[in-house]
Amino acid sequence: MTTIIVSAGLTIVALIACLAIYISVNNADPGNERMQKIAGDISEGAMAFIGREYRTLAVFALIIVVLLWIFVGAWTAVCYAIGATFSASAGFIGMRAATKGNVRTAAAAGNSLADALKIAFRSGAVMGLAVVGLGLLGLTSLLYIGTGTIGLESIILSLFGFSFGASTIALFSRVGGGIYTKAADVGADIVGKVEQGIPEDDPRNPATIADNVGDNVGDIAGMGADLYSSYVGSMIAAMALGLALTEAHIYFPIALGALGIVASLAGMFIVRANDEETLQKVLRYSFLFAAFVVLVGSWFLSDAYFGSATMFWVVFTGLAAGVIIELSTEYYTSSHFNPVKRLAEASETGAATNIIEGLGLGFMSTAIPMLVIIAVAFVSYVLADFYGIAISAVAMLSTLGISLAIDAYGPVADNAGGIAEMSSLPDEVRERTDALDAAGNMTAAIGKGFAIGSAGLTALAFFSAFSTRAGLDAISLLNIEVLTGVFLGVLMPFIFTSLTMTAVSRAAFDMIEEVRRQFKAMPGILKGETEPDYRRCVDISTIGALKQMIVPGFLIIIPPIIVGLVLGTEALGGMIIGALGTAMLLGIALSNAGGAWDNAKKFIETGEHGGKGSEAHAASVIGDTVGDPAKDTSGPSLNILIKLMSIVALTLLPLFL
Amino acid sequence: MTTIIVSAGLTIVALIACLAIYISVNNADPGNERMQKIAGDISEGAMAFIGREYRTLAVFALIIVVLLWIFVGAWTAVCYAIGATFSASAGFIGMRAATKGNVRTAAAAGNSLADALKIAFRSGAVMGLAVVGLGLLGLTSLLYIGTGTIGLESIILSLFGFSFGASTIALFSRVGGGIYTKAADVGADIVGKVEQGIPEDDPRNPATIADNVGDNVGDIAGMGADLYSSYVGSMIAAMALGLALTEAHIYFPIALGALGIVASLAGMFIVRANDEETLQKVLRYSFLFAAFVVLVGSWFLSDAYFGSATMFWVVFTGLAAGVIIELSTEYYTSSHFNPVKRLAEASETGAATNIIEGLGLGFMSTAIPMLVIIAVAFVSYVLADFYGIAISAVAMLSTLGISLAIDAYGPVADNAGGIAEMSSLPDEVRERTDALDAAGNMTAAIGKGFAIGSAGLTALAFFSAFSTRAGLDAISLLNIEVLTGVFLGVLMPFIFTSLTMTAVSRAAFDMIEEVRRQFKAMPGILKGETEPDYRRCVDISTIGALKQMIVPGFLIIIPPIIVGLVLGTEALGGMIIGALGTAMLLGIALSNAGGAWDNAKKFIETGEHGGKGSEAHAASVIGDTVGDPAKDTSGPSLNILIKLMSIVALTLLPLFL
Repeated sequence: MTTIIVSAGLTIVALIACLAIYISVNNADPGNERMQKIAGDISEGAMAFIGREYRTLAVFALIIVVLLWIFVGAWTAVCYAIGATFSASAGFIGMRAATKGNVRTAAAAGNSLADALKIAFRSGAVMGLAVVGLGLLGLTSLLYIGTGTIGLESIILSLFGFSFGASTIALFSRVGGGIYTKAADVGADIVGKVEQGIPEDDPRNPATIADNVGDNVGDIAGMGADLYSSYVGSMIAAMALGLALTEAHIYFPIALGALGIVASLAGMFIVRANDEETLQKVLRYSFLFAAFVVLVGSWFLSDAYFGSATMFWVVFTGLAAGVIIELSTEYYTSSHFNPVKRLAEASETGAATNIIEGLGLGFMSTAIPMLVIIAVAFVSYVLADFYGIAISAVAMLSTLGISLAIDAYGPVADNAGGIAEMSSLPDEVRERTDALDAAGNMTAAIGKGFAIGSAGLTALAFFSAFSTRAGLDAISLLNIEVLTGVFLGVLMPFIFTSLTMTAVSRAAFDMIEEVRRQFKAMPGILKGETEPDYRRCVDISTIGALKQMIVPGFLIIIPPIIVGLVLGTEALGGMIIGALGTAMLLGIALSNAGGAWDNAKKFIETGEHGGKGSEAHAASVIGDTVGDPAKDTSGPSLNILIKLMSIVALTLLPLFL
Repeated sequence: MTTIIVSAGLTIVALIACLAIYISVNNADPGNERMQKIAGDISEGAMAFIGREYRTLAVFALIIVVLLWIFVGAWTAVCYAIGATFSASAGFIGMRAATKGNVRTAAAAGNSLADALKIAFRSGAVMGLAVVGLGLLGLTSLLYIGTGTIGLESIILSLFGFSFGASTIALFSRVGGGIYTKAADVGADIVGKVEQGIPEDDPRNPATIADNVGDNVGDIAGMGADLYSSYVGSMIAAMALGLALTEAHIYFPIALGALGIVASLAGMFIVRANDEETLQKVLRYSFLFAAFVVLVGSWFLSDAYFGSATMFWVVFTGLAAGVIIELSTEYYTSSHFNPVKRLAEASETGAATNIIEGLGLGFMSTAIPMLVIIAVAFVSYVLADFYGIAISAVAMLSTLGISLAIDAYGPVADNAGGIAEMSSLPDEVRERTDALDAAGNMTAAIGKGFAIGSAGLTALAFFSAFSTRAGLDAISLLNIEVLTGVFLGVLMPFIFTSLTMTAVSRAAFDMIEEVRRQFKAMPGILKGETEPDYRRCVDISTIGALKQMIVPGFLIIIPPIIVGLVLGTEALGGMIIGALGTAMLLGIALSNAGGAWDNAKKFIETGEHGGKGSEAHAASVIGDTVGDPAKDTSGPSLNILIKLMSIVALTLLPLFL
């Protein structure tokens, strides 16, 4: 209980820091009138999206609350509602900060790179702290209240509902947001850049605001909700596994989470830079510093809770896995290394070889992360059974506060660049925002690798909790139901990926038609005389995204319920493992291929292989366009698939027994 | 024993029919001198490839024979050698017939479509009958001899070596041949069509003979060896499972195979057609007719061997699965249906949307085949345990004689078209060969679906035999070794696919350099005055293909041995299931996406969406080029991966216990 009270205290510190940082961002110079107008449009668009999304979500969540109340239990239903609300709030706060931060970053870029970095990073830090703060606050307060009323065991089992609620938000934010952002991006590019030949972020393009809104709803709110659900999910799974062990096992994950918050705050203090090179380094070192603080702290925690160093080693494996996966992602997606260089070279012989080489790169890049996850699972299992696997997930996610700050900084910088362009700020400002953006692209790619890896470990923790709670002694592949479950599981990510990829095309097509319509109906737009109807484009992308996510959403939730009811818990366990395997592989392959295509194009744009306007550049643009939905919609959505599927199985377990 | 003698007798009938058909093809008009010269070059190139391939293979196989002799047993080693030799012979005979049949088909197209079809189909029929005839002859004669010397059980277990030998040939023919054919194709296209603007199959292109050779070594010999290994593998696995049951269970698979040979011969008699529409129908009906004969016959066989209809129903599920998978493949790859039409439409907005839509189509197309395989496994398991799964595989493959005839007919028709073009035959001849080729493209795509589906069921049969022989009661996912095995298994097909895709690019690059060199060194080539050095291009493709298949080849064989030795048989079982799942899914996705891209391009060429020369056409050409290695190298190679991996596990099982 001391753990809970101390941890709750620390989360409040984090939330106060979050608020202070938010105020400091808000108090920064918001730039000239034109900039504020554009930023206002983006902010309004983002709020319009999130408003409509949350309304749809509310209906959906309410139905689930009622069903959970009837079929599982009142506390589970309440925890679900709270989990959903907390996650939605974290996403909202993060987006709010990002839509304040973008224009202020652009304004600060008028002074210096260091100032711009400060604002962009602080905007991201609000997100990071809101996620970990509200995550741990939700858990600790429910634990505190629940322990006093229904008892420790019951409240921990009810917390599966909390995680389910968080995952529901993640579904809407990550999948819906992912479709939104790419539909707007692809739509804006095809009519704007390709058909009319106007530059990116040109204010004459009716879809340009929607495109900038997309960065906020997809990359900020989506990423935040995704990792929020991993963060709380891994802790809840670990606590549930701890139930069968000692009290120390139950509280240790919370203590580790609180330690991570302290470490993240410490890491945030060391971020400052004056040039681009230092920038990339400083972002990396701040993360490594936080990881180091957790590592050292966990030595003492492990000793205090268990009187041995075992858990320290488990934490070490989890943290090391996070670092190795990030390094591997960087190797495969950064133009400083061979894979992207070869990809750029393959563009010389045309788009086809660019695509083939990119797919090959993506598939190959699955090896290291997958082997790392396998090794972590193996070692932490040997050290501390399934509980060890769950703790390694908690450890990997413990530094989420700072990781997320670094990730969220990217889209803020991207938006700042867009605002600078649309407000015709001087070239030197644009150069500085470009430098921020380049670093942001790298951190975004790396963040995706981290998100997938941690989602995989979290799902494995859910699986462990599932099989333990179901009282299964074995889930045997010689049992035909299990074999059926495994094969159904491996199939799901393929279908899901197909659905999300084509969802982007369909939603983008609506956008293309609308932009074409506006250009035709209002000829003044292209001359710069009439302002386009930005809001309508935002609406179309919003409606399209929400409509296109219905089928993939149900595909995640319904099949595991059917398998659980018809084939039983063992088969459902098999299904989770099957889906986990292919979802991770496809997720990594798609994210890395997309990141590599993006950076190969940027690499060519620096003048290599003929530079802009060359055949190689044209080929690399095609690769980049293919990579867009791959890396920003389909790939990250697979994180949701594995986590949501396994938390559905875990929460509804009583129905399947 | 009666089963063996009767079946052996029937295989000899099949082989006599095979010889008679071969002679009838050989006696047909071989066309004019120019045609014979070209056909001679192709034939020579094919023989050069197969000669070099078999020499490399002989060394490789000899090493394995020695290792098997030392570590497993003399009979296993001998069976391996015989399996490899028989499979290699079947491939050789099939290719020989195809390289005779191509030019004679072109010549017969001078008379009528019906005559041309007759020759092309007969050339394919030689392959089909050689594969099933030599397959069943090898098994029955070894069973006969082995039963008399080392006893029935020992000889059946030694037959795992036979299957391993056949799979080794399949590795070289399918993977090596697949790399060869696409390296030559892509190389010929890029320098010929793109850089120099000369048409496909133009005799001035130094790589054109290599390209035509590729059809024979990849699509004929490769496909044949692949299905040969499934055919004998499923029967051996069923017999091994039968060992624990009754004598009837042991002999039934052989009887079913013999029944299939009779059915295939019957089906071949009904093939004749006068126009393109009838052509496609007649090819389909001949296959359905053969399947029907097997179905009816199996009713009596089931009754005779088991006194019940149970096995009839198992056979029914296997045959039905084959038919449904073929229909599903047709739906996703034929331009008569929506998926390819939508893909063609997506080409209008450029190459990027064509690629996205194609990938989405490929991923979606995995659903039906995978659900069918799951259903077949489930139903046949319920009917007759793991033995039932093996029998459903045998049933699906029983009509292989005719299926393979239909598949092999495609590349023969394709070559005939090439020869007609290179010999400047009249337009009407070219039109007829085009009609044959169009039907051939459809059957080739469908054949790939069948090959993957049957490979999946065969691997499942191997898995069943493996776990039974290993005496495993459970392969539990709650066991960390098994979980490790499963995740390593799901990873392997991703790495393997990456390697085979990039292998094609690398081998194609050598070809491109050589063609460029010839054009530069001998300026007379492009003027049509000097004959290019075809042979050197054939050599380069041959060496490139064999070199590039070393790494993927070892990737299949070594990891299961390591897992078996280090983590044990349960983990190895998990690994097989993991690999089986993703290999099937990726295989289906890549093959169908490739087929759809190809046919979307052809659909646009008929004048839809702007026709040839339009932007949509340019986009579809890019998709088609990406699809080439996907459908002809990486996709089909995954069949080899799952079968070879599981037969390695099964054959070397004594080492892991």
